[in-house]
Amino acid sequence: MIDCDVHADVSGVQALFPYLSPHWVEYCRQSAFRGPADTAYPPHAPTSVSPLWRDANPPAASSVQAVRDQLLDPLRVDLAVLTCTYAVDSIHNPDTAAAIAAAVNDWQRVEWLDREPRLRGSVVVPSPQPEMAAAEIDRVAGDPRFVQVVVPVRSAMPYGNRHFHPLFEAAARHGLVVAMHFGGAPGNPPTGAGWPSYYLEDVVGMAQVFQTQLLSLIVEGTFDRFPDLRLACVEGGFTWVPSLLWRLDKEWKGLRRDVPWVRRPPSDYIRDHVRFTTQPLDAPPGAGALGRLLEDTDLAELLLFATDYPHWHFDALQDAIPSELPAACLDANARAFYPRLEALKEAAR
Amino acid sequence: MIDCDVHADVSGVQALFPYLSPHWVEYCRQSAFRGPADTAYPPHAPTSVSPLWRDANPPAASSVQAVRDQLLDPLRVDLAVLTCTYAVDSIHNPDTAAAIAAAVNDWQRVEWLDREPRLRGSVVVPSPQPEMAAAEIDRVAGDPRFVQVVVPVRSAMPYGNRHFHPLFEAAARHGLVVAMHFGGAPGNPPTGAGWPSYYLEDVVGMAQVFQTQLLSLIVEGTFDRFPDLRLACVEGGFTWVPSLLWRLDKEWKGLRRDVPWVRRPPSDYIRDHVRFTTQPLDAPPGAGALGRLLEDTDLAELLLFATDYPHWHFDALQDAIPSELPAACLDANARAFYPRLEALKEAAR
Repeated sequence: MIDCDVHADVSGVQALFPYLSPHWVEYCRQSAFRGPADTAYPPHAPTSVSPLWRDANPPAASSVQAVRDQLLDPLRVDLAVLTCTYAVDSIHNPDTAAAIAAAVNDWQRVEWLDREPRLRGSVVVPSPQPEMAAAEIDRVAGDPRFVQVVVPVRSAMPYGNRHFHPLFEAAARHGLVVAMHFGGAPGNPPTGAGWPSYYLEDVVGMAQVFQTQLLSLIVEGTFDRFPDLRLACVEGGFTWVPSLLWRLDKEWKGLRRDVPWVRRPPSDYIRDHVRFTTQPLDAPPGAGALGRLLEDTDLAELLLFATDYPHWHFDALQDAIPSELPAACLDANARAFYPRLEALKEAAR
Repeated sequence: MIDCDVHADVSGVQALFPYLSPHWVEYCRQSAFRGPADTAYPPHAPTSVSPLWRDANPPAASSVQAVRDQLLDPLRVDLAVLTCTYAVDSIHNPDTAAAIAAAVNDWQRVEWLDREPRLRGSVVVPSPQPEMAAAEIDRVAGDPRFVQVVVPVRSAMPYGNRHFHPLFEAAARHGLVVAMHFGGAPGNPPTGAGWPSYYLEDVVGMAQVFQTQLLSLIVEGTFDRFPDLRLACVEGGFTWVPSLLWRLDKEWKGLRRDVPWVRRPPSDYIRDHVRFTTQPLDAPPGAGALGRLLEDTDLAELLLFATDYPHWHFDALQDAIPSELPAACLDANARAFYPRLEALKEAAR
C-alpha cells in the first residue's frame, strides 16, 4: 500500500537552523523571522488533526517516530510520500524563500528519509520564482528518494501561465511528479469573487482553485509543451472532475480555434497526465454511492490512495480506505504514475 | 413552456437616450461615453450566437420582433424571462451606473414588455452599490411583469458578504427572484489564482465563480437572514452541484461551530432557495447519460428550462430541450419557484 499524502511538519524555523547558512540563521535571529506566518491548517481547527492523534505523543506529523507509530505500522503502509506544506510561497523575499526551501529539503533528507526507508520526499520550492524553483529541483533531484515537487494549489497567477515553465520543465526533466497541494498563501484572494469570510469557505472552495489550475494547465498547453509532465492533485477532492471535463470538452469544441495547441479533448490530458489523491473524500453520502459513482465514471483509474495524515477525515484508521475503492488505487496506480518509485526499486537491486 | 433565460440586447447607449434625463444624455455625449466597454459575449466568438441566428434579420436578441420570430413562435414558448446583460456593473461611477440601470429597465418596459405579453423582465441594477440597487428595485417592482433581479455572477466580493444585504432584502421583500447570471466585469480576476489568458478558460471557469458564490451565500447565512430569498443560477451549468454539496455538507459537519447560523446541512438551502437553468448543458456525453445522472441525483427538481437564446448551445431549435429532461423542468419548476409568475396570472383574472 502506498500513501501519497503524509504530512511532515516543520515545528518552527529553529528546526531548520542546522540546514541554513550562518547568514540566514543571523537573518532569522536579527529580524525575529519565525518562518511563514501563514498555514492552511489552523492548529486548533477540528479538521487540522484527527481525534485519533490529537493528544498523541510525539505530536502527530512531528517526526519519523510519530509517523511510524501512528500511521505506517498500524495501517501497514509500504511507501509513504511526505508532503511538507511549510508555506514557503508566502515569503515574498525571493532569496529568503529559496534559502528556506533548500533547508526544508535538507531537513527532510536527514531527519526523515535517512531514518525510515518507507518514506519518500517532495521537493519544496519557492514556487512564485520558477527559475529559483528549478535551481532547487536541480540541486536535490540527484537523491532518488525525492519523487515529486510540491507546490501549493493557490498562486498569484494560474500555473498554466508561461511564467511557470522553468519549474515544470525541471520537474519533467528529472522524472519528478508535480504535486499541487491544498492551500497556499500567495496574497491574492482564493476565489474569483474576492475574499471569503470563513474558514469553511476556504476549505470547501479550495476545490474551485484546483479546477482553475487544471483548466489553465490544459488550455495554455503546458502538457503539450512538457509531454513527460505528471501532475498529482493532492487533498482537493476528485468528485468534481467529471463535470469539469464535460463542460471543458464541450466548450473546447466551440472555442478551440483560440488555443490550437490543444489538439485533443481536454479529458485526454487528464487521463495521460493527472491523478488525484483520495482523502479528503468528497464522496456522495449513502452506502454504495461512491462505488456507483466510480463505476459510472472513469475516476477510479485516476485515484491515488492517501490518508492525508494527520488531518481529520475519518474516525477509525481503517476508514481511511473506503471499501468501494478498487485495489489498483491502493498501490498500482501510484506505481504506474510516479516514475521514481519504480526507479528506486531497481536502483536498490 | 417557460424559457428562463432569453437575452435582450441593448444595441448601444444611444438606444437608452429616450430613457435618460437630459443630464445623462449630455454626460454620454460630452464624454463620448458609449456604455460599458465589457461584455461576456465577444460579438464574433462562435459561442456568442448560434449559427441558427447568426445572419438573422432583425439581428438575434435585438428586438421583440426578433425574439418572437426566432424563438417564441417556433419553439412555442408560453413565457420567456428576459435577461439583459448590459454590463452596468462595470461602470465604476455609481451615479452613472444607477442612471444607466434605470434607463435599461424603462427601455425593457416600453420596448419589450409592453409589446409582447409572453415576456417577463429582469430588473437591472448597479449591483456593486447595493443601496442604490435596492432603490432601483423599489422604483420598478410595482410592475408585476418584472419577475427577478439580475446580477452578474462575478463580483468584487462574494455575494454572501453583508455589504450586499440591502440588495437581497429588497428583492426578497418584493417577491423577486435574484438571478445570478454568467459574466460580469467587476475588475478583479475571475479565478482564485489570478487572471487566466484565454476566453475558453473564462467560459468554462465561470462555473467555479458560481460555486464560490453559492458557498458564500450559504456559509454567510444570507438565506437564514432572508428566508424568502430565491436565487436562480443562470447559464452556469448544473452538473457540478452534487459534488459541491457532498463536499460542503461534509466539511460543514467539522467546521459548523464557526458559522452557527447555518443550522441545517447546506444542501437543504439549495433545495429550498436555489434553482439552475438548463442551458448551457454541461452534461455527460453519450446517449442516456444525462438521464442516468438526473436519476442518480436530486438535480431534476432544481432545474429551470432555458434556451439561453441566442447563444450557441444546440444546432437545431428542438435540441434546446434535451429528451431526458423531466416535464416539470419545462414549466412547473419555474411556476413553483417564481412568486410573480403566478401572481401575475391571478392579477389578470
